[in-house]
Amino acid sequence: MPDEMARPLIRERGEGRGSRRLEASMSDPGAPVVGILGTGDFSRSLARRLVASGYQVVVGSRTPKRSAALFPEEAEVTSQMEAASQADLVFVAVFPEHHSTLVELKPALAGKTLVDVSNGLKISLEGPSNAEQLADLFPESSVVKGFNTISAWALQMGPRDGSRQVFLCSDSSTAKSSVIQLCRRMGFVPVDMGLLSSSLEVENLPLYLFPSWRIPLLCTLSLFVFFYLYNFVRDVLLPWITARKSVFYKMPIETVNVTLPSVALVMLSLVYLPGLCAAFLQLWWGTKYNRFPNWLDRWLTRRKQFGLCSFLCAVLHAIYSLCLPLRKSARYKLLNMAAKQVKEGVDDSWVDEEVWRMELYLSAGIVALGLLSLLAVTSLPSVSNTVNWREFSFIQSTLGYCALSMATLHTLLYGWGRAFDPTQYRFFLPPTFVLVLILPLTALLGRLALCVPCVAGRLRQIRRGWEKSRHIRFTLPDDGCRNGLEDVSHV
Amino acid sequence: MPDEMARPLIRERGEGRGSRRLEASMSDPGAPVVGILGTGDFSRSLARRLVASGYQVVVGSRTPKRSAALFPEEAEVTSQMEAASQADLVFVAVFPEHHSTLVELKPALAGKTLVDVSNGLKISLEGPSNAEQLADLFPESSVVKGFNTISAWALQMGPRDGSRQVFLCSDSSTAKSSVIQLCRRMGFVPVDMGLLSSSLEVENLPLYLFPSWRIPLLCTLSLFVFFYLYNFVRDVLLPWITARKSVFYKMPIETVNVTLPSVALVMLSLVYLPGLCAAFLQLWWGTKYNRFPNWLDRWLTRRKQFGLCSFLCAVLHAIYSLCLPLRKSARYKLLNMAAKQVKEGVDDSWVDEEVWRMELYLSAGIVALGLLSLLAVTSLPSVSNTVNWREFSFIQSTLGYCALSMATLHTLLYGWGRAFDPTQYRFFLPPTFVLVLILPLTALLGRLALCVPCVAGRLRQIRRGWEKSRHIRFTLPDDGCRNGLEDVSHV
Amino acid sequence: MPDEMARPLIRERGEGRGSRRLEASMSDPGAPVVGILGTGDFSRSLARRLVASGYQVVVGSRTPKRSAALFPEEAEVTSQMEAASQADLVFVAVFPEHHSTLVELKPALAGKTLVDVSNGLKISLEGPSNAEQLADLFPESSVVKGFNTISAWALQMGPRDGSRQVFLCSDSSTAKSSVIQLCRRMGFVPVDMGLLSSSLEVENLPLYLFPSWRIPLLCTLSLFVFFYLYNFVRDVLLPWITARKSVFYKMPIETVNVTLPSVALVMLSLVYLPGLCAAFLQLWWGTKYNRFPNWLDRWLTRRKQFGLCSFLCAVLHAIYSLCLPLRKSARYKLLNMAAKQVKEGVDDSWVDEEVWRMELYLSAGIVALGLLSLLAVTSLPSVSNTVNWREFSFIQSTLGYCALSMATLHTLLYGWGRAFDPTQYRFFLPPTFVLVLILPLTALLGRLALCVPCVAGRLRQIRRGWEKSRHIRFTLPDDGCRNGLEDVSHV
Repeated sequence: MPDEMARPLIRERGEGRGSRRLEASMSDPGAPVVGILGTGDFSRSLARRLVASGYQVVVGSRTPKRSAALFPEEAEVTSQMEAASQADLVFVAVFPEHHSTLVELKPALAGKTLVDVSNGLKISLEGPSNAEQLADLFPESSVVKGFNTISAWALQMGPRDGSRQVFLCSDSSTAKSSVIQLCRRMGFVPVDMGLLSSSLEVENLPLYLFPSWRIPLLCTLSLFVFFYLYNFVRDVLLPWITARKSVFYKMPIETVNVTLPSVALVMLSLVYLPGLCAAFLQLWWGTKYNRFPNWLDRWLTRRKQFGLCSFLCAVLHAIYSLCLPLRKSARYKLLNMAAKQVKEGVDDSWVDEEVWRMELYLSAGIVALGLLSLLAVTSLPSVSNTVNWREFSFIQSTLGYCALSMATLHTLLYGWGRAFDPTQYRFFLPPTFVLVLILPLTALLGRLALCVPCVAGRLRQIRRGWEKSRHIRFTLPDDGCRNGLEDVSHV
Repeated sequence: MPDEMARPLIRERGEGRGSRRLEASMSDPGAPVVGILGTGDFSRSLARRLVASGYQVVVGSRTPKRSAALFPEEAEVTSQMEAASQADLVFVAVFPEHHSTLVELKPALAGKTLVDVSNGLKISLEGPSNAEQLADLFPESSVVKGFNTISAWALQMGPRDGSRQVFLCSDSSTAKSSVIQLCRRMGFVPVDMGLLSSSLEVENLPLYLFPSWRIPLLCTLSLFVFFYLYNFVRDVLLPWITARKSVFYKMPIETVNVTLPSVALVMLSLVYLPGLCAAFLQLWWGTKYNRFPNWLDRWLTRRKQFGLCSFLCAVLHAIYSLCLPLRKSARYKLLNMAAKQVKEGVDDSWVDEEVWRMELYLSAGIVALGLLSLLAVTSLPSVSNTVNWREFSFIQSTLGYCALSMATLHTLLYGWGRAFDPTQYRFFLPPTFVLVLILPLTALLGRLALCVPCVAGRLRQIRRGWEKSRHIRFTLPDDGCRNGLEDVSHV
Repeated sequence: MPDEMARPLIRERGEGRGSRRLEASMSDPGAPVVGILGTGDFSRSLARRLVASGYQVVVGSRTPKRSAALFPEEAEVTSQMEAASQADLVFVAVFPEHHSTLVELKPALAGKTLVDVSNGLKISLEGPSNAEQLADLFPESSVVKGFNTISAWALQMGPRDGSRQVFLCSDSSTAKSSVIQLCRRMGFVPVDMGLLSSSLEVENLPLYLFPSWRIPLLCTLSLFVFFYLYNFVRDVLLPWITARKSVFYKMPIETVNVTLPSVALVMLSLVYLPGLCAAFLQLWWGTKYNRFPNWLDRWLTRRKQFGLCSFLCAVLHAIYSLCLPLRKSARYKLLNMAAKQVKEGVDDSWVDEEVWRMELYLSAGIVALGLLSLLAVTSLPSVSNTVNWREFSFIQSTLGYCALSMATLHTLLYGWGRAFDPTQYRFFLPPTFVLVLILPLTALLGRLALCVPCVAGRLRQIRRGWEKSRHIRFTLPDDGCRNGLEDVSHV
C-alpha cells in the first residue's frame, strides 16, 4: 500500500500556460534567486518545487544545453560558475565524491549559503560527514545540512500531509535561518538540529532501518524460539519418544499457541520492569540526579516497542485460540469423544470445575487484550499527540498495570490446579505457564512495594528534587514517562 | 508503551566539542538573549533547548555558583538581577507561590516580556490565574502565558513528532508575537489562545483527565451495570430460584455477552439522537439562529466519544461471541446433545429456521461491525485530517446510519420469533433485545421522517439561513458535523 | 463519531469581559486591519477567529445596523465601501454569483489583496474558477484563493489538531505572502499551491468524495459480485438443479466466505503487479526517462487503496471463518456426524492428511493476516510520517511480498489435493481457489525474475540514470515508492 498523492493537484504546467501565468512570472522579478548545482532526479524535482513556490531558480550544469530539457521552463539552466555567481543560496546536489570538482567555484561561492543535500551509502558512525567535508572545502561559505531526508518524489508532489520534516543543521545561524524560511515557504516543516556537528546524524537518518525496534524484536524472536523449542520438546517430542504417541500435528498451531502467550506476558513485564528498576535505584541513591546505567537508559527508551511486540503476540494468541475449534483435529476429537461417551453410556459429562476455570480465564484474557488494545491505540503518534501528560501517564501507567494484572490473572487461572499436578512435571520440565509467571509477578510485587506509603512518599520527594546528600550531579532525562506529571508542574 | 525518542539525535554535546563548534558560537554574538529565572528541571531543559536553537541564554539563580554545573556550558548562570537586566524576553520558571520574591526585579523587568510557564496543582475554575497574578505584580511588563503544557522531557528531546503545540495567550500582541517566533524557532507549533483572560484555561490544560470522555464512559458503565444485573436476574438468578437450575457458570461470559451488544446498540443510537433532536428543534423553531439547550450542545460535542464507546462494546461482543465455542461448557453441552440424539435414535436434528436465523443475524452483525470499524478508523486524528468535510460527513452520517441499521437488523433477526414467544416473558421481564430496540428504532424512524421531501426541503432552507420569523438572534456553533457541507459553501 | 472540540477553550467572551481586556484592546491600535465583505456564517466565524488572533476586523455589510449583532463586539460592522477602504486585506465572503455587486468597490479595492473563500456547488473541470472570475472583475487587486476548505466550525473552534491545512494560490507572491502570514497567525498551516490557475483545483478540493478510492472500490465490488455469483452457481444452484440438494442456507455466510478470500488475494496481487509492469517496461525501454502509459501511472498511485481494500476483505474473511463453528448449521452437522459415527461403530474418525492440511493452511493464513495488518498500520498517515524511505520501502515492498507469498501459500495448502480431484470440476467450473491463484503466482514469478542477478543489475543501472540510447526525454514521477531509496541518495 504505497504512499501516494490523492489528487493530482500540482499538475503539469509545462504545457498550455495562458497569458495570466506569463504576466505573473513577469511581474515577479524580485523573487529570491536559488541556485542548484547538479542535474540529477533530485535537482529536477527541487527545481520544480522551488519554481512552484515562487523562487527564481538557476541550475548549474556541466552540460547546460543538454540538461535544459530536463528542467521546468521557468528555471534557468546555465554553467555551474554562472549559477554560483547569480544565487545567494545554492543547493549542492552532486555526489559527495564529486564535491572536489566544485573547488573552482570557491570565489563565486564565498560568503554564500551552501545547502548540502547528500546522503551516505551506509550508516557511518565516525565523521567527518559529507557536510563537514564540504565545509572544509569551502571555508568562506556557510554550509547548511538538510533536505537529505526528503525524496525527489516528495519534493515533486509537495508535502501534502503537512508533516514532512526537514532536519537542518549549520554552524551559521544566519544561513540556517534563511534555509528555514525557504523550507517553510516550500511547505515543509523545518526542524533545527543545531550545529554542523550533528550533520553526521542527519546524514544517517534516512539510512536507519528501525533502530529502536532491533532489541525488542530480537528479544521477542529469541523468547519465541526458546519457548517454542521448550514446548515442542515437552508436548510433542517426549510423548513420542516415551510413548510413541504421534502428536506432531500440534506443531503448526497448538505449540505456537502455547508459545505466543508466554512471549506476550514476558515482553509485557519487560515493559514495566525498567521503570521499577529506575525507581528502586533512585530510592537507593536517594537522589534523582544520578545518571542511570546505560543499559537501563536504553531499556527505558524502548518500552513502547517492547509493549507493541507484546501486543502483537497477544493478538496472534487470540486469533490462534479462536481458530482452535475451526480445525479438523478439534472436530475429530469431539466426534471421537461423543462416540466414546455414547459407548460408555455417560449421559452427562459436565465437569463444573473445568467449566468455571475456562470461563474465568477466557474473561480475564479478553479484558487483558482489550486493555492492551487501548494502550496500542494511544501509542499511535496522532492519538498520543492529542492527550496531555496526565492522560498519557494514566493510560500507560495505570491502565498498563491493569493489563499486566489481568494477563497474569489469565495465566494463573489457566494454570490453576495444574500447577500443583505432579503429572505436569513428568520430564522435569515444568509447564511454561509456571515459568512465565516469574517476571510479571516480580513486576507486580515491585509496583506494590512502591505503593507502601513511606516508600511512595520518599520517591515523590526524590522526584521533586530532594536529595539524601546535597551533592548535586548533572541531570539527565531519566524516567520520562513516569516523571511526566512532575515535569509539567515544573517542580 | 511509553512515548520515547527513537534516535538519540541531540546527543550530549557538553563533552568533546571540536574547534569548529567554538568558532560557531564565537561567530554568533548577535543571537537574541533569552533570560530564565529559576533553576529547576524545567529551567535546565529549557536552557538546553534554547541553546540548541541558537539563542544566548542567561539564567538567573539565587545561588549562581552552585547552579552553574546544572546548566549547559553555553548558558550564562548569574544572579537574578543580572539575568533580568540582560534579557529582553524572560522565562519565569519559579513556583507561582514564589512569584512575589521577584518583586525586587520590577525595575529591571519593566517593558520586557515575561513568559509564565507555571501550572496549577489542580483544575481551578475561578481566577485569577498564575499568569494574571504575575501580570498584576509586574504591570509594566508584558506577560505571556505559555509552555506550561510542554514537559521538561519534551523540551530536552526536541519536538520530534512535529505537532507538539504550545498554547499562548497574552494581552500584548507584540510580546505574543516575539514568543510565537521563539516558539517556532525552537521547533514547536504555537497556538494563539487570545488574551490573558484565557490563561486560566491554558493553565488547566495539562491537568485535565479526559474531560470529554467522562459522560460517555459513565453512560457506558451505568448501562453495562443495568443490563448486566437485568440479565443476571433474568437468566441466572430466577432459573435458580424457581427451578434450582444452577447456571451460575454463565456469569463471566454468557451474561456479559448478552449485556455488551445491548450497551453497544444503545450507545450507537445515542450518537445519532442528538443530531435528530437538533434538526427537529430547528424545524420547530423555524430558524437555525436559536441557541440549543446546554445539554444538547454538550451531547452534540460528545458524539465521537459515544460512538467509540459503542464500538469498543461491539468489538468485545464479537470477541466474546467468537470465544463461545472454545469453552468447555459448549463442548460438554455438545457431547451431551450428541449422546441424547443417539439415545433418541434421531438421525438428523437439522432445524432449517434456526439455521437461517443464525446465518442471517451473524451476517448482519459482521457487516455492522465492519462499518463501525471504518467509522472508528476515520475517527483517528491523522485519518480525519486527510478527508474533507464532504467525505467526513459521508462517513460519519451515511455510513453511520448504515451501521446503525445493520446493528438493529442484527438484533431484530436475533430476536425474531422469540420476541413473540410468551415463555420469554415468564418473569414479566422482557428479553433485553426487546428493550434495547426502542432507541435505535426511534433514531431510524426519526431519520426517515427527515427524509420526507417537504421536511427535508424545509430543513435545508433553514440551514441555509432561512427563518420563519425574521427575528435574528446570535448564532452559535450548532450541529457542526451535519452542517459541515453547508458551512464550507458559505451559505 | 463526529469530530468535535474536546474542551471549550475559546469560550464566549462576549459577556463579562473585565477591565484588563479593554485595556488590552485599547493598547493595541497598531494591529493590522482585515476586512470582510459578507455577513454569513463563514464571515462571522472568520471575524471571531481574526479578533481572537489579534487583528482589527472591519466587516462590510449591506445592512450594517442589522448585522452588527451577529458579530463579536470587537469587530467594526460598517458599510461595504467603508470596510473596503479601511482594510488592506479583504476577505470576499459573498456568494460567487453576487461578486458582480461588488464592482462599485473597485476603486477602493485597487492595489489591495482580495481573498476569495468561495466554493463551487459541484466539481467543475473547466474554468474559469470563481477566483479567476473575481480576478477578472478586479484587475487592479491581487486575488488570493484560499480558506475554502476550512469550515465555519473549524474557524470558530480554532485549528486544535494542528494540521488543518489552508491551500492558497495567487499570481501575486506579495499578496500570497501576506495571506500566508495571516494564516499562520490564525494557527492554520498554509500550503502554497502556486499560481491562480490552480484555483479551480483548490475550489474542487472540498467537493471530492474519495476520488482515489473510486477505482479500487469498483474493482473490489465487481470482483466480489463475480466471485459470489460464480460460487453461488457452483456450490448452491447446481447441486439444487442436478440433485435437488437444498443448501441455500450457505448463501449468507459460506458463499460469502469463499468469495472474500478470492477478492482479497486478487486485490493483493493487483497491488504488486503495476510495480512489476513498470520495472519490465523500464527494462524493455532501457531507460527510466520514458513516460508510463496513463493507466499504469494511475494504477501505480492507487496501490495503497488496492492494498487496503484487500486488507478489508482479508479481515472480513477471518471474522467469517471464525464465526463458522458458532453457527447452528455447524452444530447440527456435527451432531449428525456423531450420530452417524456411533451408528457405523467407528471409534476413531481421524484423517491425518486432512488434519495436517488444515493446521498448515490456518497457520499460513494467520501469518498472512498478521503481515497485512502491519502493512495497514503503517499506511496510517501518522505512522507513515515517522518512518524514513528505507523503512517505508522495507515494509511495503519486502513485508508486502511476504504477505503475498503467505496468502498464496494459504490458498495452495487449502486447495492441495482438491485441485487435482476431478469431482471438483463436475460442472466444468473449476473451484475458485484455482482461478484466483493465477494473478498472485504471476506476481510472485515476475518478482523472482527481477531477482535474477543480470536482470536486477540492469534494472539498478537504469534506475540510477543509465540509458540504452542516450536519447533523453522529460522525466516524470514514475515508480515513486520503489524508487524511493534511490531517490534519497540523489543518484
